[in-house]
Amino acid sequence: MTGVEGRRRVVIERVLPEVDGGRYPIKRTIGEDVVVEADVFADGHDLLGVALLYRRDGDPEWNETPMAFLTNDRWRASFRVAELGRYLYTVTGWVDHFKTWRRDFYKKVDSGQHVLVELLQGARLIDEASHRPPKAEGKSLKEWADQLRSSDATEPRRIEQALDLDMAALMAKYPDRRFATHYERELGVVVDREKARFSAWYEMFPRSCSQRGEHGTFKDCEARLPYIASMGFDVLYLPPIHPIGVTHRKGKNNSPAAAPDDPGSPWGIGSPDGGHKAIHTQLGTTKDFRKFLEKARSLGLEVALDLAFQCSPDHPYVEQHRGWFKFRSDGTVQYAENPPKKYQDIVPLEFATDQWELLWQELKSVMIYWIEQGVRIFRVDNPHTKPFMFWEWLIHEIQEDYPDIIFLAEAFTRPKVMYRLAKLGFTQSYTYFAWRSTKAELMEYFTELTHGGVHEYFRPNLWPNTPDILTEELQHGGRPAFMTRFVLASTLGASYGIYGPAFELCENRPREAGSEEYLNSEKYEIKQWNIERDDSLKEFIGLVNRIRRENPALHSDGSLHFHATDNDQLICYSKSTPDGSNVILVVVNLSPYHTHSGWVQLDLNPLWLDPQHPFQVQDLLTNAYYHWDGPRNYVEINPHSVPAHIFLVRRRLRREQDFDYYM
Amino acid sequence: MTGVEGRRRVVIERVLPEVDGGRYPIKRTIGEDVVVEADVFADGHDLLGVALLYRRDGDPEWNETPMAFLTNDRWRASFRVAELGRYLYTVTGWVDHFKTWRRDFYKKVDSGQHVLVELLQGARLIDEASHRPPKAEGKSLKEWADQLRSSDATEPRRIEQALDLDMAALMAKYPDRRFATHYERELGVVVDREKARFSAWYEMFPRSCSQRGEHGTFKDCEARLPYIASMGFDVLYLPPIHPIGVTHRKGKNNSPAAAPDDPGSPWGIGSPDGGHKAIHTQLGTTKDFRKFLEKARSLGLEVALDLAFQCSPDHPYVEQHRGWFKFRSDGTVQYAENPPKKYQDIVPLEFATDQWELLWQELKSVMIYWIEQGVRIFRVDNPHTKPFMFWEWLIHEIQEDYPDIIFLAEAFTRPKVMYRLAKLGFTQSYTYFAWRSTKAELMEYFTELTHGGVHEYFRPNLWPNTPDILTEELQHGGRPAFMTRFVLASTLGASYGIYGPAFELCENRPREAGSEEYLNSEKYEIKQWNIERDDSLKEFIGLVNRIRRENPALHSDGSLHFHATDNDQLICYSKSTPDGSNVILVVVNLSPYHTHSGWVQLDLNPLWLDPQHPFQVQDLLTNAYYHWDGPRNYVEINPHSVPAHIFLVRRRLRREQDFDYYM
Repeated sequence: MTGVEGRRRVVIERVLPEVDGGRYPIKRTIGEDVVVEADVFADGHDLLGVALLYRRDGDPEWNETPMAFLTNDRWRASFRVAELGRYLYTVTGWVDHFKTWRRDFYKKVDSGQHVLVELLQGARLIDEASHRPPKAEGKSLKEWADQLRSSDATEPRRIEQALDLDMAALMAKYPDRRFATHYERELGVVVDREKARFSAWYEMFPRSCSQRGEHGTFKDCEARLPYIASMGFDVLYLPPIHPIGVTHRKGKNNSPAAAPDDPGSPWGIGSPDGGHKAIHTQLGTTKDFRKFLEKARSLGLEVALDLAFQCSPDHPYVEQHRGWFKFRSDGTVQYAENPPKKYQDIVPLEFATDQWELLWQELKSVMIYWIEQGVRIFRVDNPHTKPFMFWEWLIHEIQEDYPDIIFLAEAFTRPKVMYRLAKLGFTQSYTYFAWRSTKAELMEYFTELTHGGVHEYFRPNLWPNTPDILTEELQHGGRPAFMTRFVLASTLGASYGIYGPAFELCENRPREAGSEEYLNSEKYEIKQWNIERDDSLKEFIGLVNRIRRENPALHSDGSLHFHATDNDQLICYSKSTPDGSNVILVVVNLSPYHTHSGWVQLDLNPLWLDPQHPFQVQDLLTNAYYHWDGPRNYVEINPHSVPAHIFLVRRRLRREQDFDYYM
Repeated sequence: MTGVEGRRRVVIERVLPEVDGGRYPIKRTIGEDVVVEADVFADGHDLLGVALLYRRDGDPEWNETPMAFLTNDRWRASFRVAELGRYLYTVTGWVDHFKTWRRDFYKKVDSGQHVLVELLQGARLIDEASHRPPKAEGKSLKEWADQLRSSDATEPRRIEQALDLDMAALMAKYPDRRFATHYERELGVVVDREKARFSAWYEMFPRSCSQRGEHGTFKDCEARLPYIASMGFDVLYLPPIHPIGVTHRKGKNNSPAAAPDDPGSPWGIGSPDGGHKAIHTQLGTTKDFRKFLEKARSLGLEVALDLAFQCSPDHPYVEQHRGWFKFRSDGTVQYAENPPKKYQDIVPLEFATDQWELLWQELKSVMIYWIEQGVRIFRVDNPHTKPFMFWEWLIHEIQEDYPDIIFLAEAFTRPKVMYRLAKLGFTQSYTYFAWRSTKAELMEYFTELTHGGVHEYFRPNLWPNTPDILTEELQHGGRPAFMTRFVLASTLGASYGIYGPAFELCENRPREAGSEEYLNSEKYEIKQWNIERDDSLKEFIGLVNRIRRENPALHSDGSLHFHATDNDQLICYSKSTPDGSNVILVVVNLSPYHTHSGWVQLDLNPLWLDPQHPFQVQDLLTNAYYHWDGPRNYVEINPHSVPAHIFLVRRRLRREQDFDYYM
């Protein structure tokens, strides 16, 4: 019976949270609680002691907190993660012979049985325990055992002593844990900073920031910063800022032949001027970039760079590291394809190269380079076309030294691939939000994302548009559609982003019918946006972002709850803080065309409402107040004014007792 | 990057069936298929090869079968388990560069592109592959590659050759699997004989088999065998047959003091005559027992013994192995307790003893002893009061040498404990069936047992009564209640059992109101049953058991499907064989008092029925035929005649085309 300890009687099963049998860590942000549950039980009817063990990865010692029994063999405890980096947790359990003895002893006393023999059994257990604590406590236990055995005292007196609570507490401190069971896995937590969970992104092409019709510079971008900050964003994401290749460069509207003055797609990275560590000359110098970062930071904006691990045919890597690419039998470097389509301006890195270790290290050095310039957030382009193992390694390597780095995965791909990338380390992920428009679609998708395990590792970042995605809804729904999709993105998602100024200016012309590409897409040309236009959504966006900041219920996604409505064009949902101190209820008219009205049927529990009391909802968009009573309430929304309510739920109405003079 | 192979691109997740992350094996019986599914995917858009690997535990080589792509990155294959014992299975996947090349090549050809460069790429892949197969096949590949490169042939001819199907099949035999991913776990299957899945148990006290009012003997039992066989049972389970202790022996109706002629509970095992390897003298000798086994076998009955690992205070172990027991401080051996109740006729084995290894080995030797006498089925008494590790070890040890041994767990305890015992090896398990009486309760419980993972390891054995359990339903519902519960047990469960003759004679007097104990329980006294009584259910039981045997749909539980009815007293469910060749539909009136009628709303899919065609149902209990059409059908059941329909569903009605003379 090698390796077996037959006296280990406790079983620990179904520990949650646990991702894929412990293969991947869960994610939390600083200050959050990790609530752990487990099935813990033993044969027979003995009482158990169960503890949650946790520590920072690398710490030699576990911290320990007792788990509380819930019901049906389930136990629960929690711990708070206070520092960036990785934590570990697991569960341990043991049979508590003293607690068992005490329970049975009490029952026998209670039913009037003689317990002299049981007193001696108890004394024996206490004697054994007395060797475990430090001296003073051990001595108390020893004395206690003697009292239980003492034939000088009466039986009632000895029973009273046996049930002494202080002594029981002391025994609980020193149980016999020689045969404790440890759960077979240590589970991980990655702890990120708050922005990993709560962030508002703004995507902008730096080269379009000049107001003089020229190629924009970082200096022009600096001038644009107050505008972006005034809308309340906190992450400013730039498409690649590196030198752009010339060979097979794409022209306006993705035409195969560029005109001489066409700037090319920023994702065609690399020219004789340099590659992924260089800056496109027309944007400015590294010094300019650092100054721009500084200015942004002073306005509460963090700059996110684009990590697009691909090259133009002119990238220095192509000559310096021929082994990192595929070459065709005609001697040319293999460009990207999705047959029959060809992307001749892009050459993919060949991750299956024999020199993969060198390649991985080089790509890591690219990240380190920009981190050293002051960048802390990266939006990763198409991570699903590079090996999973590479990302797992890279993110782990980087976060070991820089635990504050945030990775956003731009993986518009199949669901299991998206989830896998999140599991292996991406901090946030793009989602299918752009293509979820009906009430049923939105409810199903966001229930999947916020309940049932996915939310332990996948943090959605909701984009109503991107330079690649102008949805049909936005094409046809006009300004109300932009407002609706903005409210949905920014309240369904604690993290969301827009591609501007196209978004706030409601740019909605597609390249052709049936296409999601923008007409005259900014990917291939420099644009001049009139950000001062009267019909801009900048004020509305600023208002919603202020509501988001001021209401902690909107800072996370786990509490999302959908409420029924009797009109399929009206969607209703709520979010709340874990203590119920802030509750937000959102109702959106999904139709950009018509006014819709109907009855919402509220679930009062997730709203922290008492069915016995009326309550008040305050629309934070319009500042209108409504007095509601019970679950069923009427709403009417005209998309041509404001297409949504964002209600602050106020639990208690002011009554006469609340006035100062009421006694 | 120690230990990392960066070119391993395939990911394998969510392999099913898998119990607790592979910690426990699934269960199957000989001849069944193990259907395995997995999420398998890689970065990018390359095509994959995926294979299911399986082997008998101990075999050095894997068998391999290709997995088929379903949808959404899910793959499936199956293998058949043909021998008793343990099998292993896992999944492997790799990027198939040739299949990918062929797909892209075809698309380019299809869109009219020039493909000379692609032909050379294909030739290179074929060249590489030509080194992997045996000589002849390698030579064909080499020649094929040359043809693709040949400048003598026209491009259309070379394209045709490149898409050659035979050659593609040859390439599929020899993919490049250097960087294949193996799923990180090997998963187990325990393969039992058919009786593990399909069995009808009859429990009987041997000492009550005499018709002369004396203590019954194995000879008397032999005389009873034809009666039991005629009812169609195939397992005959006997409560313990060992010497019964005298100290603190319980009298009639569990009274604390036995009269001199009270026989005591058979579960009070051990006397100066011997312990777990001895036979109670009044029953007969070991030779008699073996003869009885032989006779039973000749009638199609296997005898199951009771494995009750506990002792009377008179068991030889108590003196021989004092370390296996707890002793009280007054020097007496510790009896079983559930404070304030005391069970002084039973002393539990102390599994936490320092001598646990010796104890485990002794208990194993008890099993070996009876196995050598010819016993192959054991009903295990209260396994939940002995350590889980002990059972896992014991069952594994025994089944390694005797893979045909069946263990039935009598664990009436909390659900997670029941499931854990099943996971760690028990072949079958008692259930909560006795206490599930309403339609909602039955549907919820049997959905849990047959769907959602539990069925992979937990094989329910349904008992409407036991010597300890006379449910309130049986106490009050009269003969119709016995018939109803019998039909439910024997058709909801591929395995079920009754405690007789109490059951077939509808014995329903409780010791007192509110008790589930029988009045004058056979546990404490010898009974004489008049098995020839006119109102016995023996004929009905025989009929139902014949229906069970003749209809393979009732031989397993996985296909169980509930159908809606509009009357809460009518429950309706079906079972079918995997190929749909046998479909059984059961409707039971749950009320033993009143006739109930209503409409059943059939789901036609699980019944293998075509909504376009009428069908026939034949009641196998009454031989009545009904012609039904579509999902909605009327039923009316009088519990005082037959309280259920067991319909054979006949898919095609005879039409004029079926007559011989129809042309």
